[in-house]
Amino acid sequence: MLTEDLRQQLISVVGQKWFLDSPNELHAYSYDATPLLQSIPDAVIIPSSVQEVSMILRMANEHRIPIIARGSGTNLAGGTVPVQGGIILNMNRFNQIYEIDEKNLTATLGPGVITADFHAAVEAIGLFYPPDPGSMRISTIGGNVAQGAGGMRGLKYGVTKDYVMGLEYVLPTGEVLRSGGKNVKDVAGYDLTRLMVGSEGTLGVITEITVKLLPFPATKRTLVVYCHDLYDAARIVEQIIAAKIIPATIEFLDQATMKVVDDFAKLGLPLDMASMLLIEQDGAEEQVMQDIEKIAKIAHHVGAAEVHMAATIEEGAKLLTARRSALSALSRLRPTTILEDATVPRARLAEMVQEIERVAHKYNLQICTFGHAGDGNLHPTCMADERDHEEIERVEQAFEEIFHASIRFGGTITGEHGVGMTKSKYLHLKVGEGGIELMERLKAAFDPNNILNPGKVFAKRDRHRIVVRQS
Amino acid sequence: MLTEDLRQQLISVVGQKWFLDSPNELHAYSYDATPLLQSIPDAVIIPSSVQEVSMILRMANEHRIPIIARGSGTNLAGGTVPVQGGIILNMNRFNQIYEIDEKNLTATLGPGVITADFHAAVEAIGLFYPPDPGSMRISTIGGNVAQGAGGMRGLKYGVTKDYVMGLEYVLPTGEVLRSGGKNVKDVAGYDLTRLMVGSEGTLGVITEITVKLLPFPATKRTLVVYCHDLYDAARIVEQIIAAKIIPATIEFLDQATMKVVDDFAKLGLPLDMASMLLIEQDGAEEQVMQDIEKIAKIAHHVGAAEVHMAATIEEGAKLLTARRSALSALSRLRPTTILEDATVPRARLAEMVQEIERVAHKYNLQICTFGHAGDGNLHPTCMADERDHEEIERVEQAFEEIFHASIRFGGTITGEHGVGMTKSKYLHLKVGEGGIELMERLKAAFDPNNILNPGKVFAKRDRHRIVVRQS
Repeated sequence: MLTEDLRQQLISVVGQKWFLDSPNELHAYSYDATPLLQSIPDAVIIPSSVQEVSMILRMANEHRIPIIARGSGTNLAGGTVPVQGGIILNMNRFNQIYEIDEKNLTATLGPGVITADFHAAVEAIGLFYPPDPGSMRISTIGGNVAQGAGGMRGLKYGVTKDYVMGLEYVLPTGEVLRSGGKNVKDVAGYDLTRLMVGSEGTLGVITEITVKLLPFPATKRTLVVYCHDLYDAARIVEQIIAAKIIPATIEFLDQATMKVVDDFAKLGLPLDMASMLLIEQDGAEEQVMQDIEKIAKIAHHVGAAEVHMAATIEEGAKLLTARRSALSALSRLRPTTILEDATVPRARLAEMVQEIERVAHKYNLQICTFGHAGDGNLHPTCMADERDHEEIERVEQAFEEIFHASIRFGGTITGEHGVGMTKSKYLHLKVGEGGIELMERLKAAFDPNNILNPGKVFAKRDRHRIVVRQS
Repeated sequence: MLTEDLRQQLISVVGQKWFLDSPNELHAYSYDATPLLQSIPDAVIIPSSVQEVSMILRMANEHRIPIIARGSGTNLAGGTVPVQGGIILNMNRFNQIYEIDEKNLTATLGPGVITADFHAAVEAIGLFYPPDPGSMRISTIGGNVAQGAGGMRGLKYGVTKDYVMGLEYVLPTGEVLRSGGKNVKDVAGYDLTRLMVGSEGTLGVITEITVKLLPFPATKRTLVVYCHDLYDAARIVEQIIAAKIIPATIEFLDQATMKVVDDFAKLGLPLDMASMLLIEQDGAEEQVMQDIEKIAKIAHHVGAAEVHMAATIEEGAKLLTARRSALSALSRLRPTTILEDATVPRARLAEMVQEIERVAHKYNLQICTFGHAGDGNLHPTCMADERDHEEIERVEQAFEEIFHASIRFGGTITGEHGVGMTKSKYLHLKVGEGGIELMERLKAAFDPNNILNPGKVFAKRDRHRIVVRQS
């Protein structure tokens, strides 16, 4: 796909050192964290400035070469897999925090900054960037923005899209645009900033991000609740909200997940329990204690088997870490772990978990469910073996039923992972054919030659996963 | 513009009662709250259902008739003035609250619901919809959403665009689309919900809105601070934020505004003061008292002339009402009041106010400045007489300098009022020519025949206001 001439032109933009196309290098960039999806790119380029990105895009657009922007490759929906070949644009050299503006409570940074590093930098000066996706120790802010990533603090604090105030991004023509800025209020023209967030690399390549910050909460407390019954857990969540308390996070683990996590993290969890809730509240000391006490009362009242407040912030952190490592723990069981992202309105939580159990039983699969009970964003996770094609068929059918159930319950096909490659077949369930057609017209307005991450979001293609594509 | 045939077809959709085109009726809809702008529509239609809106739009699209959706007509940027004639679509019959979902903390309502009525309905059951635009007793939720309206609580709680979770809207083809929903997290496809918010009636006609709700704060306290000096007020705002306190609102009035408001509301304000700040914090009793005390200390430390805490919620409300009536008070002075919306990052507040004073002096105009000091969203307001054409020329030149200054300070041309007709000439200052071209392509994707509120947002036309257009 890349003529030698074009290859040389691209090398002259970034320098030989930052242009990779040996077989091993291409192989390393042919997959991300999505199971069962792999495709070889034609080249990997690692630019260091918006001017380089602009030149690369302009050349790619001229020659109709796909461009796939990539951060750390933790994408779970195939978002960074180059399914039509092309150039992987590794944005990791954009890894500086340009400014933390303490007066305006904003920060401006490159897309390649690791999210957890950004947390550390702002927390060191008493500030707070709440979005905490599960991948945060590895993933980049740019990846979070492209996907509209969520996290555990979504219930109280919102998600990535609630924090992006401004962007610099590059169109396929090489044009560099800026949207938004440091202004809390700005209604000048269409909200292109928000259109770009969650656009999964299909509308432009993001080169700079300005986010909103909050003051760091004074303290936090963690409560763990064990339930005999799945519906008890759901009722507790419901009654917390009905009591007008909004905790920072309410995390849910089903029994199957508890067993696996406990084996991994050795926490001594009571494994005869049907489910557990991890609840965290942050803020001023007095308010936090009040809220946690009220929540404990609610849990007891509903009939929780056990309610335990973490004695220290460290113990609370340890419990939260166990929840964060649910995916890693589950991944140990079998060769292939498919983590999905079915989301329903909070009030339908228990029904959805039951539905997932029904589907798992129907297709004779091992599916564990954990997730963000506070905002209805569940992660049904299936342990399988991709070498068993018959099993993988059953996995695909099971998840299709699960997505249909989410929609039936008033939910969505993806709460935080994105549509990518793996859910494009289901997008119409959420937005309708008319919605898809409109989105395709918007895409064409940004990228008429369809070079930006082609084949993603609303590609009309069969769901079957693509095997390694030889170049 | 409307053939008799088309006229009859439209009447058959809504019924004769809801189709208005007598000269008096057309005149009533030829203007909104924007000074110096008026244009006669061809008809006014008041639909009651999405099916009616769909049929009307389809017919209008076929015949290339402009459609201008309208709520209460409180628009300040010409957004609802039918500058190219056409049909005013009065959405006021969509005035029901369909559902308040206490479990999911959402509400679903029609665009014609008056914002203050919606506040009352949710507050009656202990819930809270924070956006409080100055027009809220008159304006509709639909109008707020179309404009991306702000309000006094923006600093702590955000603005309308942070609360819209889902929409139903109609395209010019008559196609009815739904975006978003009740899910806290949803990244299925592009964020069309957020693209519609603030799109000023140019992309679709909104027929249903789902918003997020919060629990109603336990209590609130109001502090009033009088300053000898403009820079003291700005420094106080700065230090409040630096102390990691985010009050619900920090409102600013300059001396000129204080004099006029005091004459109107008889509050006994100390009129030798250069400026005043009205600060409100809400939340749990203890935290509110703590924050208010810290704020009072900061104010004293900076050198405020007087710091006074409202003794009761009622007294606080009275002071806030005085601030809310600033526009009404200023409007009494001279026949024409031009209220603008120049916004800068918070840290540039004092400089901006000084710049406005400089410009007022340069052009020999009376400009009072008040606004949302907490988020840098200022309302420089000029009292003039539209019959004095020479004075109006000076007003236009003055505001042009003010917009340029906002941009120079890193701000925007409009924080909450919208671009509409009156600021389309300046949009390029904020988004660039490339940004405008992209927005025009997006507009074309929604509305290829340009029937939805044509001439707004990025029309290329001279700034001079249009006088009454005879049909």
